[in-house]
Amino acid sequence: MRILVENGQHSFDYLKAADIQKIMAEQSGLVWLDLNGDELDVCRMVMEEVFHFHPLAVDDALVETHIPKIDDWGDYIYLALEGVHSEQLLDDLNKSLELDVFMGRQYIVTYHPQTIRAVEVVWANCQRDARLLQRGSNYLLYQIMDELANEYMLLIDSLDEKVEDIEDQVMEQPDSDLLQSIFRIKRSLLNMRRIVAPQREVLNKLSRGDFDLVKAKERMYYRDVYDHLVRVQDITENLRDLVSGALDTYLSVVNNRLNDIMKTLTLITTLFMPLSFLTGFFGMNFFQPGGGLRNWTSSLPFFITLAIMIGLPLGMFLWMRKRDWM
Amino acid sequence: MRILVENGQHSFDYLKAADIQKIMAEQSGLVWLDLNGDELDVCRMVMEEVFHFHPLAVDDALVETHIPKIDDWGDYIYLALEGVHSEQLLDDLNKSLELDVFMGRQYIVTYHPQTIRAVEVVWANCQRDARLLQRGSNYLLYQIMDELANEYMLLIDSLDEKVEDIEDQVMEQPDSDLLQSIFRIKRSLLNMRRIVAPQREVLNKLSRGDFDLVKAKERMYYRDVYDHLVRVQDITENLRDLVSGALDTYLSVVNNRLNDIMKTLTLITTLFMPLSFLTGFFGMNFFQPGGGLRNWTSSLPFFITLAIMIGLPLGMFLWMRKRDWM
Amino acid sequence: MRILVENGQHSFDYLKAADIQKIMAEQSGLVWLDLNGDELDVCRMVMEEVFHFHPLAVDDALVETHIPKIDDWGDYIYLALEGVHSEQLLDDLNKSLELDVFMGRQYIVTYHPQTIRAVEVVWANCQRDARLLQRGSNYLLYQIMDELANEYMLLIDSLDEKVEDIEDQVMEQPDSDLLQSIFRIKRSLLNMRRIVAPQREVLNKLSRGDFDLVKAKERMYYRDVYDHLVRVQDITENLRDLVSGALDTYLSVVNNRLNDIMKTLTLITTLFMPLSFLTGFFGMNFFQPGGGLRNWTSSLPFFITLAIMIGLPLGMFLWMRKRDWM
Amino acid sequence: MRILVENGQHSFDYLKAADIQKIMAEQSGLVWLDLNGDELDVCRMVMEEVFHFHPLAVDDALVETHIPKIDDWGDYIYLALEGVHSEQLLDDLNKSLELDVFMGRQYIVTYHPQTIRAVEVVWANCQRDARLLQRGSNYLLYQIMDELANEYMLLIDSLDEKVEDIEDQVMEQPDSDLLQSIFRIKRSLLNMRRIVAPQREVLNKLSRGDFDLVKAKERMYYRDVYDHLVRVQDITENLRDLVSGALDTYLSVVNNRLNDIMKTLTLITTLFMPLSFLTGFFGMNFFQPGGGLRNWTSSLPFFITLAIMIGLPLGMFLWMRKRDWM
Amino acid sequence: MRILVENGQHSFDYLKAADIQKIMAEQSGLVWLDLNGDELDVCRMVMEEVFHFHPLAVDDALVETHIPKIDDWGDYIYLALEGVHSEQLLDDLNKSLELDVFMGRQYIVTYHPQTIRAVEVVWANCQRDARLLQRGSNYLLYQIMDELANEYMLLIDSLDEKVEDIEDQVMEQPDSDLLQSIFRIKRSLLNMRRIVAPQREVLNKLSRGDFDLVKAKERMYYRDVYDHLVRVQDITENLRDLVSGALDTYLSVVNNRLNDIMKTLTLITTLFMPLSFLTGFFGMNFFQPGGGLRNWTSSLPFFITLAIMIGLPLGMFLWMRKRDWM
Repeated sequence: MRILVENGQHSFDYLKAADIQKIMAEQSGLVWLDLNGDELDVCRMVMEEVFHFHPLAVDDALVETHIPKIDDWGDYIYLALEGVHSEQLLDDLNKSLELDVFMGRQYIVTYHPQTIRAVEVVWANCQRDARLLQRGSNYLLYQIMDELANEYMLLIDSLDEKVEDIEDQVMEQPDSDLLQSIFRIKRSLLNMRRIVAPQREVLNKLSRGDFDLVKAKERMYYRDVYDHLVRVQDITENLRDLVSGALDTYLSVVNNRLNDIMKTLTLITTLFMPLSFLTGFFGMNFFQPGGGLRNWTSSLPFFITLAIMIGLPLGMFLWMRKRDWM
Repeated sequence: MRILVENGQHSFDYLKAADIQKIMAEQSGLVWLDLNGDELDVCRMVMEEVFHFHPLAVDDALVETHIPKIDDWGDYIYLALEGVHSEQLLDDLNKSLELDVFMGRQYIVTYHPQTIRAVEVVWANCQRDARLLQRGSNYLLYQIMDELANEYMLLIDSLDEKVEDIEDQVMEQPDSDLLQSIFRIKRSLLNMRRIVAPQREVLNKLSRGDFDLVKAKERMYYRDVYDHLVRVQDITENLRDLVSGALDTYLSVVNNRLNDIMKTLTLITTLFMPLSFLTGFFGMNFFQPGGGLRNWTSSLPFFITLAIMIGLPLGMFLWMRKRDWM
Repeated sequence: MRILVENGQHSFDYLKAADIQKIMAEQSGLVWLDLNGDELDVCRMVMEEVFHFHPLAVDDALVETHIPKIDDWGDYIYLALEGVHSEQLLDDLNKSLELDVFMGRQYIVTYHPQTIRAVEVVWANCQRDARLLQRGSNYLLYQIMDELANEYMLLIDSLDEKVEDIEDQVMEQPDSDLLQSIFRIKRSLLNMRRIVAPQREVLNKLSRGDFDLVKAKERMYYRDVYDHLVRVQDITENLRDLVSGALDTYLSVVNNRLNDIMKTLTLITTLFMPLSFLTGFFGMNFFQPGGGLRNWTSSLPFFITLAIMIGLPLGMFLWMRKRDWM
Repeated sequence: MRILVENGQHSFDYLKAADIQKIMAEQSGLVWLDLNGDELDVCRMVMEEVFHFHPLAVDDALVETHIPKIDDWGDYIYLALEGVHSEQLLDDLNKSLELDVFMGRQYIVTYHPQTIRAVEVVWANCQRDARLLQRGSNYLLYQIMDELANEYMLLIDSLDEKVEDIEDQVMEQPDSDLLQSIFRIKRSLLNMRRIVAPQREVLNKLSRGDFDLVKAKERMYYRDVYDHLVRVQDITENLRDLVSGALDTYLSVVNNRLNDIMKTLTLITTLFMPLSFLTGFFGMNFFQPGGGLRNWTSSLPFFITLAIMIGLPLGMFLWMRKRDWM
Repeated sequence: MRILVENGQHSFDYLKAADIQKIMAEQSGLVWLDLNGDELDVCRMVMEEVFHFHPLAVDDALVETHIPKIDDWGDYIYLALEGVHSEQLLDDLNKSLELDVFMGRQYIVTYHPQTIRAVEVVWANCQRDARLLQRGSNYLLYQIMDELANEYMLLIDSLDEKVEDIEDQVMEQPDSDLLQSIFRIKRSLLNMRRIVAPQREVLNKLSRGDFDLVKAKERMYYRDVYDHLVRVQDITENLRDLVSGALDTYLSVVNNRLNDIMKTLTLITTLFMPLSFLTGFFGMNFFQPGGGLRNWTSSLPFFITLAIMIGLPLGMFLWMRKRDWM
């Protein structure tokens, strides 16, 4: 638990409810309370007793998992947001980072069980430059959401690169590792889409002016983040199509390869089966080795047989080439 | 049939219409009548003569099966809801549990042919704590629907685990049992989606304030359940995508395996066919065993043949490796 | 052509326009004129001269085929409906039964080239119980549409059973008959969907109160039929998904079977090819039967060869089992 | 270029702008100017100088190709429509026929580079019966659009027949010609859909009363054509589903056939490979023909071998039949 | 950086902010400032200090990449547009050309990092004919967007040709080069769709009259460009369907080819396997060459064997032909 106030750099750990109330009473400006890694009981106490948030909203924040959403509770707005690790594939549903935000006119309360880079960045910026806080809770929320969107951008860029790698590889060496990569990235894009769409919707509502708490002139900032997320979503959809295409290509290439192999098999079988029959025929005991049945003893039949053995496969080979089998 | 009234823990079995009417007349507070396992005639009698529900609504409740829906009949609201067994796969259409609810200002009538855990839980809670009833029929309905949504959550979580198991298994040992699991879970998710979407819509209507019977300040509770169902639906869609992906992976892996087998077949055939021809050639009766045709009797041709028999497959093997067939 | 009037059981055949007009003038109550199997000219004459329907509406009813629709012509409503044979698969586009209805305040005119069970049932009910007619044209229309919906229900139930049979069979004995069944039922569901969706829309419009002719208190009846059709549509969609799943299963099972066969082929080939080479090798004329080349005459090489011939396939067999090919 | 006026049958060729203006000034009734096969310059001159159409509308009509659309220019409505050759497959994008119509209160101007049967039919009807023109430009436009819709109907009926032929053939003799037919008809339906949907939208706008130029009582006529196009679209979608089903069936049948062939191959190989090994075994030079190694010379081993050679394939055959491979 | 003003042909390079302001102050008419290849700092300085654009809008233009969008900033409109190289396949996401436009009442500012042909064309036209500038900023924007749409048209036409080539080739010689072409064109169409849809939306907003800056009578021009883009989008969708069809055809044709090959393999194997067995049978050492076992020495069995060797394959061949395997 840490608190950032406008006029100065005061930041504390493990305060009591009374302390927070005191700080808030003293401040005329914006207060940012960040709950990160604190015990649930403490958080609940702070939310309910200091800020008097509605029990349903507190439950939403502390107990339940949500897809991004925004609820207007009159004096404050509750937002459930999702962050991402920009350097990781998002192939596990649980890798996304939940961030719960309560925005009032004079305060922002953020709650996140795991450390989120975007929050850290904004916190550090605000410590460095007090003016950022002076622009009000709307602007602070914008900053946090903008940083979250940046993480999305970085993640989608790294996914983009991976898809390009896959596309290069798929024609050259399609193996089962590549298949695994394809399925992992597919899943990652699936999760991406699942998170981005409702988060975009949250920003859409913020920028449309549905909330009394959001000042008209701040809306264009939310609109800006909204545009970023639209682009993230757009690229996500595009990458999904590309990955699907890559999978189709993979299957076609593997299929082609199987065809090639089958052709070779057929070729070999077709060339040698008749030859084997011929050698078997002259290996039968109807004929005497090196003599016996008169008409087979001269060398002529041997050389005719030899000629057939050379000519037959050659002829079949040419016939197959003509029929485009090779 | 059992009745729960606000002031006290009275609960009865097999009452007559007159008794119920008497109880209701005595009560100023909320009455919950639960019809479970009673004969259809009794239920119909109670609904029509005691509560004067519209015949169409009674038919909807007692005779017909419905997807979740909500009808406003002025003095009361009729809801057809679906519950689930949270510990079972939902792979059979008939495994879902129908729950019919009539909500008036002073009463709730629930009808369900099978026992539903969510109803039992809320009933027990209300018996334990009379204050729950004192909050009115809206809140009681919320509690029942919230418990139903919890069951959904549990079911979807168990489905989630099963999908993860499938995903782990599909790359390692794809067999036809796995295929069956995939198809069963696919079907389960299909049924899930079929139930959740209209139930969510019911809650949407309740939370939007379409009904005079629903008090404005209770709507946020329905909104909360609505959010849960949105999340259930979201996970359901996600799991459907994952299962589809697992099926694709399965098919790709099986296909790859087939390719491997075909390659081996081709390899063996390609290596041994020419050898068999060779042995057949020298097995023909043109040659005399251990002598005969002069030029074949020395050991040299034998060793040349031997060399070919060893060198040829080796050469082909290397050529195939070069063409990436192995 | 037959006429049913409220006060009494009079029903006639082959009336003239003047007669119908006379009957209608005499009646203060509802008149139901059913045109079934009559010549087009007669029907047109009745519609245009007795009821003065708009030529476009008459053309819609008599000449053209329509998907279900509803048109408001002020004094009367024209409905194009579709019935089904509940005991038949609907795999042919032309098997559905068109029913054209004109509903005025005092009359219902039905036209259907083929006998429709739903119409017969309602007709018989009305003959038996005159009160059904006394409830007005709205209620009579509801009765007809409700019976049509019942037929849908029966058909969809029988389709449901067929799909269950297919699902049972597909894992056990997937043959080309089953494939045909799958494709037929798929088509049947396709036609089902094609009919139900617009018919549902017709009922939606009736229940929404778009028409002056429909009394407010009758709307809930149409709403009831609408709910039935929503359920029919819902099951139809579900069955479509199940049938698609069954087809996927079929293909997977057949594919697996092919894999099994290919494995066996490969196994046999792989086991016997080297053996055949061995026997061929010792069948060459480089060796003398029962003697000749000294080092081959003893029994030792024979028993070594025998050992190889037994050991080699055994070894390969074990190797393949280890690689999970069996 | 030809002109049809209300009072009389006058129709001219190659008029000058002044002439047209004169004719129009003389007429109190409807004038239909049909531009077909005239040079672009002439058409442009007429449109711009006589009728004073907006340059953008003239460009739309003369230069550019459009999907069906409707533009309201105040004094006149511009429509881009598409006709079809009812007797041809629509498998080429360029086979559809563009028809541009300008409808004013007192005139209709039609432009089409190719002859369109629907236009010819309506023209002939109007020449025959002057009353058709007297009903105004709305009704004339309806007639043209109705004829266009009839052509659609004829085309879709012929497509329907072709799809039925394909469905009959696909189970019996699936060859690559059938495959080509399937792909051609698929493409034709694709083009059909592409044309019908926007044309339907044009009629929807006309029947909804979006335009001041369209009189209220004429709207029901456009509504009628709209219903026809809805039906065409409905059948198109249905046929697309059927063709997709036919393609699936084709692939399944071909796949089944491949399976049958592979089974036979496996059967033959599996039956004869062991036999070939046996014959090879006894063909080795370890044994002396007709004697040699004592224990092989009697007839008993020969008959045992013979028994194996008959019994082995028989046994395998039965085993395979049991495993359902045949 | 270059500037075009209404009264005259003045165009400059590398001006200072003060110069631009001076030029603008002097002009009563339209000023077009084109920033192409200038350093970011210079562009930012011009945008912020001369035109006082909002920092978010400047960031949108200079720093970030966007899908086409339009933002209303009151005194000016910001548009992010995408151009294409009409002579290139659009198979790379980065090949599209971003064009940022700020439109005020008296000025147009365009920014594009790469040269865009459409901009050059309009610039040249305006230099040639000063009247084009006199029609105001709305008309100038229309001209630029119309030229962009023309480039789209050219690109989509060249894609259309490529798809036709592919369709011709796919039945005749389906090889892996064709497969690559199919996947590249698929991707190109994907990118096309991604760009066209939002750009169309921009034009829709312009033509709908959402912006005070857009004069009512200019909207029909934007509507015209909108119609072009609708057509581009329509053809794109159509081509996508055709390419999908081509891919299906490709796979079917390759599959058929595989079937043919497998049939040949099976045929050869099936014909020769029994023959090989026969020759092996008579090659066993149970028989003495040219005599031995009495009953085999006469010529009769030899000729019977010969007859079998000729008759057996012939019979099988006919049987297979009957079963349609050839």
